[in-house]
Amino acid sequence: MDIKATIRVIEDYPKEGISFKDITTLLKNKKAYKETLDLMEDALKDLEFDYIVGIESRGFVFGAPLADRLGVGFVPIRKPGKLPGDIESISYDLEYGKSEIEIHKDAINKKDKVVIIDDLIATGGSAMASAKLIESLGGEIVAFEFLIELTELGGREILKDYKVISLIEYDY
Amino acid sequence: MDIKATIRVIEDYPKEGISFKDITTLLKNKKAYKETLDLMEDALKDLEFDYIVGIESRGFVFGAPLADRLGVGFVPIRKPGKLPGDIESISYDLEYGKSEIEIHKDAINKKDKVVIIDDLIATGGSAMASAKLIESLGGEIVAFEFLIELTELGGREILKDYKVISLIEYDY
Repeated sequence: MDIKATIRVIEDYPKEGISFKDITTLLKNKKAYKETLDLMEDALKDLEFDYIVGIESRGFVFGAPLADRLGVGFVPIRKPGKLPGDIESISYDLEYGKSEIEIHKDAINKKDKVVIIDDLIATGGSAMASAKLIESLGGEIVAFEFLIELTELGGREILKDYKVISLIEYDY
Repeated sequence: MDIKATIRVIEDYPKEGISFKDITTLLKNKKAYKETLDLMEDALKDLEFDYIVGIESRGFVFGAPLADRLGVGFVPIRKPGKLPGDIESISYDLEYGKSEIEIHKDAINKKDKVVIIDDLIATGGSAMASAKLIESLGGEIVAFEFLIELTELGGREILKDYKVISLIEYDY
C-alpha cells in the first residue's frame, strides 16, 4: 500500500512555513501501521544490537513495537523532568526552537549496541543530541532509523558518521 | 518471571511522599518487556475493538506494541499543543498537580470501540478524562488496561462503570 498517502500534511504548523507531517493518520490505519513496522523491522534485520532507543514521544510509537518484534529492550530518551533516576542531559537546536533531552545514566552500559528510532529526521538536531547522550554513557550506535526524512534540511549530512535508514522522503 | 521485581521504585519523586514506579527498568529488560506485553495481550484476547488509545507518553510504550500485536490502529491522547489537527481538549486533576490532554477530533468516529492503555492507574484522573474525550467523539470504551494499579488511590472506584484490567498492584 502507499504508506506515504496515509500521512497527513498540515501546512503552517506549528509555525508559518513549516509543513508538518502528521503521522497520527498513519497510526490509526491498521494496515498502514503494520506495513510501516514491517518495513522498519526488515531494514534492521541484518544488524546486531542490544537495545532500541526511542526519542519521546513519537519515537516511542515506532521504537516500542520494533523492540517487541525484535526481542530487544527498549530505552526511552525523554523531555526534561520525566525520568526519575540519575540522568544525563543535553540541549540542542531543532527545526523550530530549542530543546533538551535526557536519558537515565544506567540505561546504557559501556559497549552496548543500540539503534536509535524516531518518526522523523529534519535538521538532525535531536538525533545528534541522542547520539551524544548514548556515547557519553559508552554505548555504540549501530544505526538510526526514521520513518520520514526531510531531505533538504540536512539531517543526513549531520549524521554522516552513522548508518542512517529512512523509509519515506519529503523535500522539507 | 517476576515482572514486578523489574520495576524500580523511587521514593519522593516527583514530590515528597510519592513512591514513583519507574518502568524504564522493566522496558530495558527484554524478557520482562516481552512477558509484560504477553500478559497485557492475553487479557484483551476475548474483547472486540477497533483501536487502542494510548495516553502520552508511557501509555505509548505499551499501547503501540499491543496495537501491533492485535492488528488494530493506534490513537494517541497527547499533552496540549502536540496534535496538529482539530482537537478536543479536557483538563483534570492528577495525583500531584493538574493536567490537560487532547485528542484529534477525527481520531474516533461514532460507535468506534476502543481500549484505553496506560502504564499506571493512580487516582484515575487521566483515565477518566480520556474516557470523556473518547465518549465526546461518540466512541465506546470496551476496557481500560493498566500495567500497574495503585489500589489505595481509588482509581478503580472512579472507573466503576468500565471494565478495568491491571496486572501489577501496589498499595500506593
